Amino acid sequence: MGSLSFIGLGLNDEKGISIEGLEEARRADLAFAEFYTNTVPNLNIERLERLIGKKITVVTRTQLEDESGKDIVTAAEKGRTVLFVPGDPMVATTHVSLRLLIHKKGIDSRIIHASSITSAICGATGLQSYKFGKSITIPNSLPLPNSVLTTLTDNLDRGLHTLLFLDIIPSSNNQLTVDQALTRIQSAKPGFENRLAIGVARLGSPDEIVKASKVRKLIKEDFGRPPHSVVVPGKLHFMEIETLKTFCGALDSDLGDNS
Amino acid sequence: MGSLSFIGLGLNDEKGISIEGLEEARRADLAFAEFYTNTVPNLNIERLERLIGKKITVVTRTQLEDESGKDIVTAAEKGRTVLFVPGDPMVATTHVSLRLLIHKKGIDSRIIHASSITSAICGATGLQSYKFGKSITIPNSLPLPNSVLTTLTDNLDRGLHTLLFLDIIPSSNNQLTVDQALTRIQSAKPGFENRLAIGVARLGSPDEIVKASKVRKLIKEDFGRPPHSVVVPGKLHFMEIETLKTFCGALDSDLGDNS
Repeated sequence: MGSLSFIGLGLNDEKGISIEGLEEARRADLAFAEFYTNTVPNLNIERLERLIGKKITVVTRTQLEDESGKDIVTAAEKGRTVLFVPGDPMVATTHVSLRLLIHKKGIDSRIIHASSITSAICGATGLQSYKFGKSITIPNSLPLPNSVLTTLTDNLDRGLHTLLFLDIIPSSNNQLTVDQALTRIQSAKPGFENRLAIGVARLGSPDEIVKASKVRKLIKEDFGRPPHSVVVPGKLHFMEIETLKTFCGALDSDLGDNS
Repeated sequence: MGSLSFIGLGLNDEKGISIEGLEEARRADLAFAEFYTNTVPNLNIERLERLIGKKITVVTRTQLEDESGKDIVTAAEKGRTVLFVPGDPMVATTHVSLRLLIHKKGIDSRIIHASSITSAICGATGLQSYKFGKSITIPNSLPLPNSVLTTLTDNLDRGLHTLLFLDIIPSSNNQLTVDQALTRIQSAKPGFENRLAIGVARLGSPDEIVKASKVRKLIKEDFGRPPHSVVVPGKLHFMEIETLKTFCGALDSDLGDNS
């Protein structure tokens, strides 16, 4: 009887896996990876293969979801199997479905955690973890769902920060950008252009960009390659203000209602 | 001129650091670690020293905060310096203060991320990331602050899940337990004993415990060594219910208002 370990790749490249993940992958009989639930901007599959000493089969969304991850399930029934996933495993519902399926077949599964944007965003911005409210995904399709604006307003009313995940565009293997996401909200929420927001690109990579300013200025910035995300801060503590000014380029005139 | 890298240790032991963190620590001139902002239950400092090929100076809260991290700042002024911290760096305000201090002295700093309870909790419970509201710390001191109950009620009214961090008890180098935290809330919030809650212990370790049931039953469970944490779920999606039943021992009779 085999097993399946979900190994998180973290944020930037193949060096984001933990030592525990590396050891498990080296011990495995078969290795798979998926890169469609998120972007790992500097990952190189050949380097990852050299690191773990074996070939990796990259699976598409269709292979993993529509065929119920058939190849992975078959592999996990027979031998020690690993599946590399962007960020920390199980944030995507697909992985949860696969884990449930594996369990029903009586196969052991485990999760080897890695860094995720949901905690790394605190380090990058200096915003405090316990001050984030419900997060939101900005979908690629238009119009913007009402729930996006309701959640954002609700968090702001409570003084809470909001992390916006930007949708993957399946056709192009691309992702919404900071300016696209902000423009969509701006056209639906009067006055939003004068709020403070933070644009984040390639968090955890050497060319990470984290920039805080008013929405109308942020929309004009070029953040480069994906993945991008956005934070709309609520009420700011003085130390949060200091980090936004020190590390994220915020000016006093950007702070407005947040301070 | 030197530099300071904050390296996340992740959740369980020294194998929670990323390959990037390992390489940076091996290149460093001096290495420090702090273990007072959280517990890394199976970490062994000698094993970590062997892994990175150098001695590690463990700093106390007093050394890091009251003396403004003097030794670390001096080391970082001169050479390549690393500071190991539990979980993902910068979730604790102490690290933010130190990073600001380092920056004011013109010293480069960076963050090497690792797994954190804030994302790993999704994998462990199957609860979806975007359905968590503001998180709360249950303090060691009594009485329970009003803000704890207000936030919990606010999240529940919105159908959101709440992650409860349990305070470190500085005197004993220990941490509040699942039953202590639940008992404190129960005595302040009528009807809480019949709600569904999830107790979590040593997340990411081989002897991890994740147990979902009604508060009154959960209070009687022994979760063993720290660190512990608690989730109070809001409205549950059918797949969340399935994972709680499959992986966390929840019974239909535990679900009550959540389903």
